Amino acid sequence: MGDQYEVSEVGAGALTIPSLRWEEPPEGPVLVLLDQTRLPAEEVELVCTDVPALVQAIRTLAVRGAPLLGIAGAYGVALAAARGFDVEEAVEALAQARPTAVNLGYGVRRAAVAYRAAFGEDGAQAAAAAALAEARAVHAEDIEASARMAEHGLALLGELLPGGGHRILTHCNTGALVSGGEGTALAVALAAHRAGELRRLWVDETRPLLQGARLTAYEAARAGMAYTVLSDGAAGSLFAGGEVDAVLIGADRIAADGSVANKVGSYPLAVLARYHHVPFVVVAPTSTVDLETEEGADIEVEQRPGQEVTEFSLPFAQGPGAEAGTGIPVAPLGAQAYNPAFDVTPPELVTAIVTEAGVVSPVTRDGLAEVCSTSRWSKSRSGNGMMAE
Amino acid sequence: MGDQYEVSEVGAGALTIPSLRWEEPPEGPVLVLLDQTRLPAEEVELVCTDVPALVQAIRTLAVRGAPLLGIAGAYGVALAAARGFDVEEAVEALAQARPTAVNLGYGVRRAAVAYRAAFGEDGAQAAAAAALAEARAVHAEDIEASARMAEHGLALLGELLPGGGHRILTHCNTGALVSGGEGTALAVALAAHRAGELRRLWVDETRPLLQGARLTAYEAARAGMAYTVLSDGAAGSLFAGGEVDAVLIGADRIAADGSVANKVGSYPLAVLARYHHVPFVVVAPTSTVDLETEEGADIEVEQRPGQEVTEFSLPFAQGPGAEAGTGIPVAPLGAQAYNPAFDVTPPELVTAIVTEAGVVSPVTRDGLAEVCSTSRWSKSRSGNGMMAE
Repeated sequence: MGDQYEVSEVGAGALTIPSLRWEEPPEGPVLVLLDQTRLPAEEVELVCTDVPALVQAIRTLAVRGAPLLGIAGAYGVALAAARGFDVEEAVEALAQARPTAVNLGYGVRRAAVAYRAAFGEDGAQAAAAAALAEARAVHAEDIEASARMAEHGLALLGELLPGGGHRILTHCNTGALVSGGEGTALAVALAAHRAGELRRLWVDETRPLLQGARLTAYEAARAGMAYTVLSDGAAGSLFAGGEVDAVLIGADRIAADGSVANKVGSYPLAVLARYHHVPFVVVAPTSTVDLETEEGADIEVEQRPGQEVTEFSLPFAQGPGAEAGTGIPVAPLGAQAYNPAFDVTPPELVTAIVTEAGVVSPVTRDGLAEVCSTSRWSKSRSGNGMMAE
Repeated sequence: MGDQYEVSEVGAGALTIPSLRWEEPPEGPVLVLLDQTRLPAEEVELVCTDVPALVQAIRTLAVRGAPLLGIAGAYGVALAAARGFDVEEAVEALAQARPTAVNLGYGVRRAAVAYRAAFGEDGAQAAAAAALAEARAVHAEDIEASARMAEHGLALLGELLPGGGHRILTHCNTGALVSGGEGTALAVALAAHRAGELRRLWVDETRPLLQGARLTAYEAARAGMAYTVLSDGAAGSLFAGGEVDAVLIGADRIAADGSVANKVGSYPLAVLARYHHVPFVVVAPTSTVDLETEEGADIEVEQRPGQEVTEFSLPFAQGPGAEAGTGIPVAPLGAQAYNPAFDVTPPELVTAIVTEAGVVSPVTRDGLAEVCSTSRWSKSRSGNGMMAE
């Protein structure tokens, strides 16, 4: 083994700009996003004054990450309402912006239901206020959920790995950038770091868009965590060398049977973890669980443009407004690419699912249903008169 | 599943420039290399007039691939001899240029042994001629070995997958660019293509240096093969979807027990293949087998600069002479990376090893020793008076 335990330079602390915030300047309300495509090179804000701008930000991954998409979706409905745009059109456009991300539809629906209920009783202005209040509630619940997931996840690590000194492998980005709070899987790693129990965070670079190298490393550096970046394919060598104590990842959709859709490259880690008898732990709020999706095969996996693979075209390297097709080719002209955004890990490969309402382990349909039934999501859903849809 | 079976544009046929050739212009002999770091953007030749230039080309991967390194090493010794440089110094520098690549040392030793034997009897000029003759022999044997591996590999595919219509997944680059002939694993895929039995070649992009996307896709396109590039992490989705019939890879060193060192990312494919009951086939000449290395744990794995992971710095995107440390950062400043060039797959995960002397399956120490004992390598080794070293 080489220098994989070397110490990285430590950054300046937490994020200086929140990943998302609602502002009300005199010229009307706006949703301000930290443009994640420009990280780690620079912290640039993206101001959305309407829903098409927000939809574009979602599609280009300027705003991304399961819980944050839920918050963004809810604020998007509030934005349309506050500015007097067609709210039902906004609901539809937002909900369809990314097909696999269940939280997005969840946030959109929560704000839409609140809007519609108030509209019928008190008219447009009150409905706009209700949508914004619901978006703020989704936001606040997510902050709270992050803290609870970190707590449950840290306790679980203590049970699974009693010796401490955890060496955690993670994939994609699951920290403060994806959440109103400190995130999902990375929030657990951060809790372990603060408790003095994190020996090393292995950060999969996460091709094709490098959310691990760009975003997780950025957050890990700022938090002063001991971290090391690696090519996704090098994770196998770490497992073979006994250098991974647990895998912690997030989720974009969890089916009723416990199948986990997450960033492509997660499933190979689950298979490696099983082969090496290493715990594979998924950290996600119950809002990521979609009980209406029966099993993994029912999850629609978003296929993204092949240019993300065949070209090096990260916007942060090219300035704002860069589009797929304008990058540096890394494959021959005309090369086709297979570029699913997500993969699906079956429940039998998942050691535990950590939610804000508790830990599901072993991962069973009943266990998952139970934790969802006790969650804040379930309460707020019935509180809003939403039926299973 | 998305458009992963779409047809790529078809290129103009075989390589227009050989990966390596010996030339004798009036000003003295040179070794001319196709600079692989510049592909697929442009076909640029690199002319080596001395061994330090060749060592640099080997280190920067301008010339790479197990069999080709053996040929390059042998010609390197011949170059030093022909130009009157210190041959023993050249032998040492060449043999140490990359630690895991066993073929490099093999080629260097063959030329060195021929040189020394002739030097003692007939002096420097005859010794230089002997070294060159031996390099040409190594080269010719490799061309022949490629053809034999393709033949044996194609027959093996027919046995393993009787239906035809193979969907083959490969990693890194193993075609004409790595060989005097048509290569190792890719030569087998090419034989299947010519026989009308290749339905799809799945090409792992192969991070960090993208030899799959850049080089294998380039060769596949030129040969008119139906191919699709993917991020290394997306291979799991193909296995899960039943879209892979066999994995074919090359090797950089095979230990006596059948452990296979190959490009990092190979071992995860072996674990995935086992989990999904898909054959995992290694194609390599017997010169890649190192019977002096007892087992996988004894293989020294080359650790390469972390900047290959933390920066996007492919020379083809930047022009000649680009060095690590001058690329576009994709991780925060100061980020450490774990960047092993290879990983090691244990024999129990390898379905078969295809050599020019026959197929070893199941992969056992005795089976491997037997195929090596009947190989041309063994004959030429003893013919040169080389003992096991």
